[in-house]
Amino acid sequence: MTTLDDLPIRDDLRGLKPYGAPQLDVPVRLNTNENSYPVPEPVVEAIGKALSAELRDLNRYPDRDAVALRADLAEYLGHGLTVDQVWAANGSNEIQQQLLQAFGGPGRTALGFTPAYSMHPLLALGTGTGWIPAARDADFGLAAADAVAQVRAHRPDVVFLCSPNNPTGTALDPAVVAAVLAEAPGMVIVDEAYAEFARPGTVSALAVLPGHPRLVVTRTMSKAFGFAGGRLGYLAADPAVVRAVQLVRLPYHLSALTQAAARAALAHRDALLGTVAAIMEQRDRIVAELRARGHRVADSDANFVLFEVGGDQAAAWRVLLDAGVLVRDVGLPGWLRVTAGTLAETDAFLSAMEKLS
Amino acid sequence: MTTLDDLPIRDDLRGLKPYGAPQLDVPVRLNTNENSYPVPEPVVEAIGKALSAELRDLNRYPDRDAVALRADLAEYLGHGLTVDQVWAANGSNEIQQQLLQAFGGPGRTALGFTPAYSMHPLLALGTGTGWIPAARDADFGLAAADAVAQVRAHRPDVVFLCSPNNPTGTALDPAVVAAVLAEAPGMVIVDEAYAEFARPGTVSALAVLPGHPRLVVTRTMSKAFGFAGGRLGYLAADPAVVRAVQLVRLPYHLSALTQAAARAALAHRDALLGTVAAIMEQRDRIVAELRARGHRVADSDANFVLFEVGGDQAAAWRVLLDAGVLVRDVGLPGWLRVTAGTLAETDAFLSAMEKLS
Repeated sequence: MTTLDDLPIRDDLRGLKPYGAPQLDVPVRLNTNENSYPVPEPVVEAIGKALSAELRDLNRYPDRDAVALRADLAEYLGHGLTVDQVWAANGSNEIQQQLLQAFGGPGRTALGFTPAYSMHPLLALGTGTGWIPAARDADFGLAAADAVAQVRAHRPDVVFLCSPNNPTGTALDPAVVAAVLAEAPGMVIVDEAYAEFARPGTVSALAVLPGHPRLVVTRTMSKAFGFAGGRLGYLAADPAVVRAVQLVRLPYHLSALTQAAARAALAHRDALLGTVAAIMEQRDRIVAELRARGHRVADSDANFVLFEVGGDQAAAWRVLLDAGVLVRDVGLPGWLRVTAGTLAETDAFLSAMEKLS
Repeated sequence: MTTLDDLPIRDDLRGLKPYGAPQLDVPVRLNTNENSYPVPEPVVEAIGKALSAELRDLNRYPDRDAVALRADLAEYLGHGLTVDQVWAANGSNEIQQQLLQAFGGPGRTALGFTPAYSMHPLLALGTGTGWIPAARDADFGLAAADAVAQVRAHRPDVVFLCSPNNPTGTALDPAVVAAVLAEAPGMVIVDEAYAEFARPGTVSALAVLPGHPRLVVTRTMSKAFGFAGGRLGYLAADPAVVRAVQLVRLPYHLSALTQAAARAALAHRDALLGTVAAIMEQRDRIVAELRARGHRVADSDANFVLFEVGGDQAAAWRVLLDAGVLVRDVGLPGWLRVTAGTLAETDAFLSAMEKLS
């Protein structure tokens, strides 16, 4: 049998494993920050109708520029954004891959403040972009002066910021974004996949876009919209950034079905985003309860919570799994990440956590 | 206003325009090799039903490995292929991009025999792979000895073959595939996007897969299946190649909707592929009629025909457009490409062609 080592794959891929959390059949799955609420019936009907209208003409290529969808996304984001400032793709992973193809790539570097979204270094690898792991402080925070000093030292072509950060959960002080933007010689990407879950008073980097053509804000419909299966990520930036991405995007990358389903979901945003408040309530409950039990817990503006278990987090992960609750071991010694879902899921998680003591 | 030149885009992208044929509103569109036949009503209903079954659970990520779809594709292809030998993505463009990410990339090269599918060099550019344009003979043919000599001279990491070739339309002699495979030091990708339209007796490179782990055959549902709007490309190869691609694929790259719609289309393949014979008839009619009128025409195994107009093909393209027929100027001096569609579309095209003389 031919093995991977027998093939002429790139040397920098040898020995790697495919990215992805274990897909296990467990009663309570709180490991990939999905929205635990199924799509409500009226929205199911609306998306179904929108999809049906596309089916007869599937023999034709879709709108290559997804103009109608991008206009809807711009209107959703607000901040005076228009269609020429928004771009969409199959998940924010593809958005960020396209950004690295346009602004990173061979001979260039991207920097991220770890621990952060673990796909960022893999997207760098897949696009031939050098990866520079910069550091957060011991409490997973990131001070402006510290971020600026690391950007100054490395002068990367692309900087990734995550707000709220994954896996820690905390949103960035807008002063950090502004300071990094002032120092960075290249593009600054703020990954706001979880923005809709932020605590009151949190400021999105969207507010910083005017006058900053090297700033890009990426978003997704996977989390707050409960649209992970539909795969729709997007960015907001200066129109020139959108034109740059159009030089590297695959033609017709976004299917007619994806465009139609995402538009229908956006049209029913009130129903879909109606779950956000309930999820935030469970998130705050998890934070408060774990702190009351003596765990260290990172502040969370997302639909997940990073908490300290002390000692061997892989063993703790297994104890929770044996109790029927799947959480995420992100490889941070002593810490685990749990998604905030329904009240019943929080009950199950908090109950399972008692087995750790 | 910020321009593209103000942004720190890669130097090798400066001055480029986004890939894609003009999307013009013209009565007869024969420029992107779409299948002219809309999806039949019973298939519309079946796809609609399959999509509806997915909608409630769109809050969950899709099957990351698209196992059920890949099993269906393997069964469709035949040749004893199994699920572990097939991989699927959003169009064969994404399939080929993933292959270049795994086997090409920085410091490596890919070679194609031009004129061929114009995305191949762009995919190389987007993945940092060096591009080597090798030559076909003056009649757009490719002899085994000539192909082997060029591969030997350049020793590329990846060789692209196109069979049937786009934009010329002619399928490759399997001896060429075998000879290139024997000489090439790296991977050999045979792009069979138009395979279902090949003339009787044409042999697919699928037959050559056993014992050749460096061979990859790529296919699409955009053409024969009339599924361009659904975006589904795939590959067949040794299981090790599939594992290699899984190292660079974006996680959850294929939406739950895409997987469900493609599976429903495959289940109704008889109805969808029922258009192929009618399209081949029009294709053969275009070839015969243009030759009868004195044009040089490339042999076609595809759903399009490359024909010589003599002189300025851009001017001829404009004459046909003014007559309401949109064909493709692929940049080959003196030649144009027309898609074979319905009988009425062929009538319109042949009638418009009279304005050229």
